[in-house]
Amino acid sequence: MRVLFVGDVFGDPGLRAVAMHLPDLRPHYDLVIVNGENAHHGKGLSRPAYKKLREAGADLITLGNHAWDHKDIYDLIQTEPIIRALNYPPGTPGKGYWVLEAQGERLLVMQVMGQVDMGLNLYDPFRTTEALLAEVPHDYALLEVHAEATSEKYALGHYLGGKVSALLGTHTHVQTADAGFLANGTAVQCDVGMTGPIHSIIGGEIESFLGRFITQRPTPFKAASGRAMFCATELVLEGGRCVQIRPMRWDEPE
Amino acid sequence: MRVLFVGDVFGDPGLRAVAMHLPDLRPHYDLVIVNGENAHHGKGLSRPAYKKLREAGADLITLGNHAWDHKDIYDLIQTEPIIRALNYPPGTPGKGYWVLEAQGERLLVMQVMGQVDMGLNLYDPFRTTEALLAEVPHDYALLEVHAEATSEKYALGHYLGGKVSALLGTHTHVQTADAGFLANGTAVQCDVGMTGPIHSIIGGEIESFLGRFITQRPTPFKAASGRAMFCATELVLEGGRCVQIRPMRWDEPE
Amino acid sequence: MRVLFVGDVFGDPGLRAVAMHLPDLRPHYDLVIVNGENAHHGKGLSRPAYKKLREAGADLITLGNHAWDHKDIYDLIQTEPIIRALNYPPGTPGKGYWVLEAQGERLLVMQVMGQVDMGLNLYDPFRTTEALLAEVPHDYALLEVHAEATSEKYALGHYLGGKVSALLGTHTHVQTADAGFLANGTAVQCDVGMTGPIHSIIGGEIESFLGRFITQRPTPFKAASGRAMFCATELVLEGGRCVQIRPMRWDEPE
Amino acid sequence: MRVLFVGDVFGDPGLRAVAMHLPDLRPHYDLVIVNGENAHHGKGLSRPAYKKLREAGADLITLGNHAWDHKDIYDLIQTEPIIRALNYPPGTPGKGYWVLEAQGERLLVMQVMGQVDMGLNLYDPFRTTEALLAEVPHDYALLEVHAEATSEKYALGHYLGGKVSALLGTHTHVQTADAGFLANGTAVQCDVGMTGPIHSIIGGEIESFLGRFITQRPTPFKAASGRAMFCATELVLEGGRCVQIRPMRWDEPE
Ligand SMILES: [Fe+2]
Ligand SMILES: [Fe+2]
Ligand SMILES: [Fe+2]
Ligand SMILES: [Fe+2]
Ligand SMILES: [Fe+2]
Ligand SMILES: [Fe+2]
Ligand SMILES: [Fe+2]
Ligand SMILES: [Fe+2]
Repeated sequence: MRVLFVGDVFGDPGLRAVAMHLPDLRPHYDLVIVNGENAHHGKGLSRPAYKKLREAGADLITLGNHAWDHKDIYDLIQTEPIIRALNYPPGTPGKGYWVLEAQGERLLVMQVMGQVDMGLNLYDPFRTTEALLAEVPHDYALLEVHAEATSEKYALGHYLGGKVSALLGTHTHVQTADAGFLANGTAVQCDVGMTGPIHSIIGGEIESFLGRFITQRPTPFKAASGRAMFCATELVLEGGRCVQIRPMRWDEPE
Repeated sequence: MRVLFVGDVFGDPGLRAVAMHLPDLRPHYDLVIVNGENAHHGKGLSRPAYKKLREAGADLITLGNHAWDHKDIYDLIQTEPIIRALNYPPGTPGKGYWVLEAQGERLLVMQVMGQVDMGLNLYDPFRTTEALLAEVPHDYALLEVHAEATSEKYALGHYLGGKVSALLGTHTHVQTADAGFLANGTAVQCDVGMTGPIHSIIGGEIESFLGRFITQRPTPFKAASGRAMFCATELVLEGGRCVQIRPMRWDEPE
Repeated sequence: MRVLFVGDVFGDPGLRAVAMHLPDLRPHYDLVIVNGENAHHGKGLSRPAYKKLREAGADLITLGNHAWDHKDIYDLIQTEPIIRALNYPPGTPGKGYWVLEAQGERLLVMQVMGQVDMGLNLYDPFRTTEALLAEVPHDYALLEVHAEATSEKYALGHYLGGKVSALLGTHTHVQTADAGFLANGTAVQCDVGMTGPIHSIIGGEIESFLGRFITQRPTPFKAASGRAMFCATELVLEGGRCVQIRPMRWDEPE
Repeated sequence: MRVLFVGDVFGDPGLRAVAMHLPDLRPHYDLVIVNGENAHHGKGLSRPAYKKLREAGADLITLGNHAWDHKDIYDLIQTEPIIRALNYPPGTPGKGYWVLEAQGERLLVMQVMGQVDMGLNLYDPFRTTEALLAEVPHDYALLEVHAEATSEKYALGHYLGGKVSALLGTHTHVQTADAGFLANGTAVQCDVGMTGPIHSIIGGEIESFLGRFITQRPTPFKAASGRAMFCATELVLEGGRCVQIRPMRWDEPE
């Protein structure tokens, strides 16, 4: 089973890059999963953004800490193939996992949010993930860890002891160069990277984002515009495990 | 001018990797700078660790949030080519920058620590760096940003408007795949990555590090052992700017 | 010199309590200082709120982390007796201190914001305050510390070595019972308390504020309504120091 | 039922104050509960400190974020009437609640730790407390909230909707002046205050504690010495609810 995971799609540049590049890649994969937490102008997922991601070939959309920024999500998440983090408290709308199927095999896709430096107090991602893995039948499992700290991402990979085929980090918006395998067999990459505007501060417009740092006063958030990069990671799942993990980056032509 | 920057050297595996690999690389560079904040069993820099790094070819050692973990540093930092972050308060031992020379040109090396999620309240890294750049004569400037947040690293790169030749991040211990150039000409890489034990949680021994996450009780810190990776980034400085940035990783043979 | 300091005025209930109670107290004091950071529906200071506070008898209004929540402030702070924290970066609108006069003596009023757990990276409150005290001529000095951590408030009081007549904390919205004197002579109270709605979560409407904790999703902020408490602290300054510190609380009648 | 709750006993001065003052108070109460998280030189609970607290009249000792600082606790907590926070993860040694009896009635005593700004990622204190209240039979319930944020303490009090007779905060080491009743009938005080050295920074020795703020480098922690204050809160439980909450402070004579 060949799976493509596309990192945090950010604003119109990100949506444009997905529309341009994903259709070319789509035929080479059985399943395509896209993180869409920043698709609506950098903040959350809206219905038009959702439609664009699906039309470009996404089978499942994942969210993150920006999940609830745009109110459309409260409808979309009831009916569409969209997941938010699994470790939100009881009563949270939507689901924290989804089972996709390809070639007669089931891929369990889960997202958890980290607890370190995320400004949120979500439930224990370690035991929550472990419990779900025991509960939901699957042939392969992919865990997206939407988190800040590299230590927490690696800790989860080691904790789960090979029970997930692959662990892919998101949220920092910077692709990491560590794609590889843990000793327990789990494929890991700390961050898939962003699919969004290159000339930006992690997607945000430079002047307004700088304002936050420089003034320490509230500044309006703006998504940057301009050429986009497309960051994604390919996973090949075979014989009960991930046998290949390959990050990729494509830049919109000038 | 060819410069090699070696990322956070972690414990004995990191020192061993430096001793094995750096002498091979050394002849190809004019200057070698090494982050040594984790060289002493993962915590700070000791005299023996310092000697090993220097003997392997380091011209300058940089520190980080672990700067003060080992008490040897209070002597070493008075006399040796070692820098701690520039944005510590007045009265802090040691210096926050160093001017190295090669081929008749001066490279100003500075380190700042980020303010976001570092558990410290250091001085403003933006204006502190800007002021130093105006004050210390140099031909090239290299800014090491020891920080957690990718946004803060990029924000600094944009804020400084091309006045630094290169900005290299450290601290997350995971090499990033974003090496490139900002629109203002500054070469950037979010994190150079760690030089330390591969089978670990960012250098720490897996069981003890997992304990922190799983128990939320204090657990003794242990450095991991075993095969090391060596992460570094090459910079070529020419004609007043950085013209090449190239990350590298070498793994100790099994 | 008799000074009254009124704690964080919160929303309409707070403004109402000030309007009802402050005029009765006003004749007994030479100077009245009011923290107004939450006066505009719990978020910032607006022109109408400012007018109400002044008409009720305030000589000087102080702000806090909510300083910039309402855009009126950007005009008001240019011309009116209003201060924001002293330890904002250079270029911040407004002033961080004000010199009031009464009975031929000058009271220097300063506000600093804490660095611990405030979600901001302001400048060093210790050295910033110390420098200002050396620079601005005064007979008495009152330092408002707008901060979360009790340790930081006490640390400032000890650090300043008796150079401030009184240190009053604000921001937690809960009056503390520790009013007294440090060994160095400075009068201290960790928090003056809120002037705002009693039936609330530190001023906020209960249901919406609970939502943040329970759902970990964004929830609209609402100020509570209903009966208000009025929290303030009286300082008597004589012979070069504070000789009396007396907290008070008045509750709006049912 | 008359209950006395003694706030965070800090180091030898705190133990001394308890030994001097608690025996006088003891006969007036049915039950005495003491927070001992700082009893061993400011850090955790040791066997000798435990014995002193018990000999002075404590029926139950509670802990906090310093629970695990002294290794004695791992033995003591197995057999003695000591509780740590209820919302530690599964597998944590000890218990998070205790049922005391007096006058034929059962008082359920629980401790939870806050999630805001505590530097820990414990389980949801809201639902954890709610579930325990439903599970453990009791006539009265006392909830100690060991937490930093005033908002979280009040939020818990409102969330539990009168199911706890009283909620007493600890951890900030500063007694608050807000003792009273929520609309739902629960008696509340944001912080009981510390029983420890007066001339200190929340118990810590002034010079060393200041060092942390001023240098931003690690500084050895020292407990302060000298005269102690004794902070406690009296609760009268009758007819199914708390009918009186009365904070007190006693200072060691000079
Ligand atoms: Fe994102
Ligand atoms: Fe995110
Ligand atoms: Fe490091
Ligand atoms: Fe570091
Ligand atoms: Fe505030
Ligand atoms: Fe406030
Ligand atoms: Fe304590
Ligand atoms: Fe505590």
